Amino acid sequence: MSSLPFFHLVADDLRQVEALLRAQEANPHPAIAGAVDHLLGSGGKRLRPALVLLSSHLCGADPSAALFAAAGVEMLHTATLVHDDLIDGSLMRRGAETLNARWSPAATVLTGDYLFARAAYLVARTANVRLVQRFAETLMVICNGEIRQMFDGRDRVPTFQEYEQRIYAKTASLIALSAEAGAILAHADEDTISALHRYGERLGLAFQVVDDILDFVADEQTLGKPVGSDLRQGLITLPVMLFLEDSHDHPTLQRLRHGPLSEDAVQEAVRTVAASPAIDRSLQVARGYIREAKETLQSLPPSDYRDALLDLADFVTRRQF
Amino acid sequence: MSSLPFFHLVADDLRQVEALLRAQEANPHPAIAGAVDHLLGSGGKRLRPALVLLSSHLCGADPSAALFAAAGVEMLHTATLVHDDLIDGSLMRRGAETLNARWSPAATVLTGDYLFARAAYLVARTANVRLVQRFAETLMVICNGEIRQMFDGRDRVPTFQEYEQRIYAKTASLIALSAEAGAILAHADEDTISALHRYGERLGLAFQVVDDILDFVADEQTLGKPVGSDLRQGLITLPVMLFLEDSHDHPTLQRLRHGPLSEDAVQEAVRTVAASPAIDRSLQVARGYIREAKETLQSLPPSDYRDALLDLADFVTRRQF
Repeated sequence: MSSLPFFHLVADDLRQVEALLRAQEANPHPAIAGAVDHLLGSGGKRLRPALVLLSSHLCGADPSAALFAAAGVEMLHTATLVHDDLIDGSLMRRGAETLNARWSPAATVLTGDYLFARAAYLVARTANVRLVQRFAETLMVICNGEIRQMFDGRDRVPTFQEYEQRIYAKTASLIALSAEAGAILAHADEDTISALHRYGERLGLAFQVVDDILDFVADEQTLGKPVGSDLRQGLITLPVMLFLEDSHDHPTLQRLRHGPLSEDAVQEAVRTVAASPAIDRSLQVARGYIREAKETLQSLPPSDYRDALLDLADFVTRRQF
Repeated sequence: MSSLPFFHLVADDLRQVEALLRAQEANPHPAIAGAVDHLLGSGGKRLRPALVLLSSHLCGADPSAALFAAAGVEMLHTATLVHDDLIDGSLMRRGAETLNARWSPAATVLTGDYLFARAAYLVARTANVRLVQRFAETLMVICNGEIRQMFDGRDRVPTFQEYEQRIYAKTASLIALSAEAGAILAHADEDTISALHRYGERLGLAFQVVDDILDFVADEQTLGKPVGSDLRQGLITLPVMLFLEDSHDHPTLQRLRHGPLSEDAVQEAVRTVAASPAIDRSLQVARGYIREAKETLQSLPPSDYRDALLDLADFVTRRQF
């Protein structure tokens, strides 16, 4: 992703963000230091920092504050992944072992907590109170969404509205915050803050739909984790929802409503959905979100940074990982 | 504790803090709302909010910001307890079931995360960037201390310096932040901020030493949890350290160095240490910290609020729970 054109505008900034992410604040225990290196080294796409930096340049935010905000959102994202992988029992992410594959649940919980603290510390260093508040609100939305999914979300077919709420909480809320962060740091007018928030929200919804599609059709090597992980957890995503609209009596997928599938049934369901028109229909939904994201940017004055945000939106529906 | 004289000065404020703590921000899932009520209802001492409020009055901080800071530190404290109880497998706290006794580890992790976010949100509402930074730094210290204890701390006798570092991270760091919060909010001079920080730090060290003593000598009904819980976890605290100085060849306590004790051995060790002079020597250590805490306050101008902080310090070594 770092070779893509919209990353060139912020390539230097991203190197500085990387240094902030890896700075070992507050003399951490070597076990934490090693875990942080492992997590950051396993090759995240740095989509969220890139959004913070592009929106900061677009709006004329203080460059140093932009770097702290960019590092803060990536650290928050990493912290949520550590606890998510523990909760889901996931052993691989981005082609590398997860922390919980190597460590006890207790050490994994504490390391995630430490990363939350580091994230809050980085965002506080922007000295922008509104951004800190939005950051805390967003973490509440993410946790609340995870709890909703845990208590209400498994083994049933959600409505489209429920699905959209879920992926907003899970993914789009933090991507929206990343996109609006530059406008908040630059003390831009409310219309600009709202436009960038909505751009990020739509981009984030598309990003998660594509993630949900890739969980059926991706090459496992490229994806860095097994396909079918949602179905294995009893989690019904858009491709299955759209598949069931056409084939509501398919026996394997019907069984999803009654609890976890066997591994053979997961594999069969993945193959069935992957070969169906539901994949293309899901991609149309993602493209609709991207269209809305790009339309929203039309209200902002033209610039190289606005063009980069438009390109980035197009990339989201083209990505393979 | 709410009937103690130093609480009277902030009793009205504390009622408002309670309302802030229980306000359900960001429309939480009913499961979270219920969990928060359960956790807040099980009768914490509200020591940390009282410190924030007393130091805020002492320094002339904005009253509304003081309420948010007071609620924020209590929420952070509650969040850390949720994850601690999960990690230690504790089933009772303050006479009530812990969250992990009723819920899955996954739901407990997420609820703790939600409470961290709520805590950050409350502190951000003070609109004081320095306090938000200190808050994030303190959470890093707490997590780092827990990880150090997990990787290095069990089944060995710590030096006094290691013990003091551990109880600083675990307890005194957040009590120090609570005491200095009012000075930070009031933009007091650095000497005042340092004095209140040091007062809180010494108070917090004493508080944890008393906690460690009560784990040997308390009445279980009053304590709200079983005694001996540290030994049961293989955690060696000051009473055992001082006991071993006089009786380094005691067979049961020697066995602690080689892994967890049987329940019978825990009970025997608790009775042995409780009946020994190590308890009184530990109390002398706590009283030494309290003396230092009170001396530190002498640099501040006399007032009812300063008197209340002096009284509160004396209470810490008298408490039974």
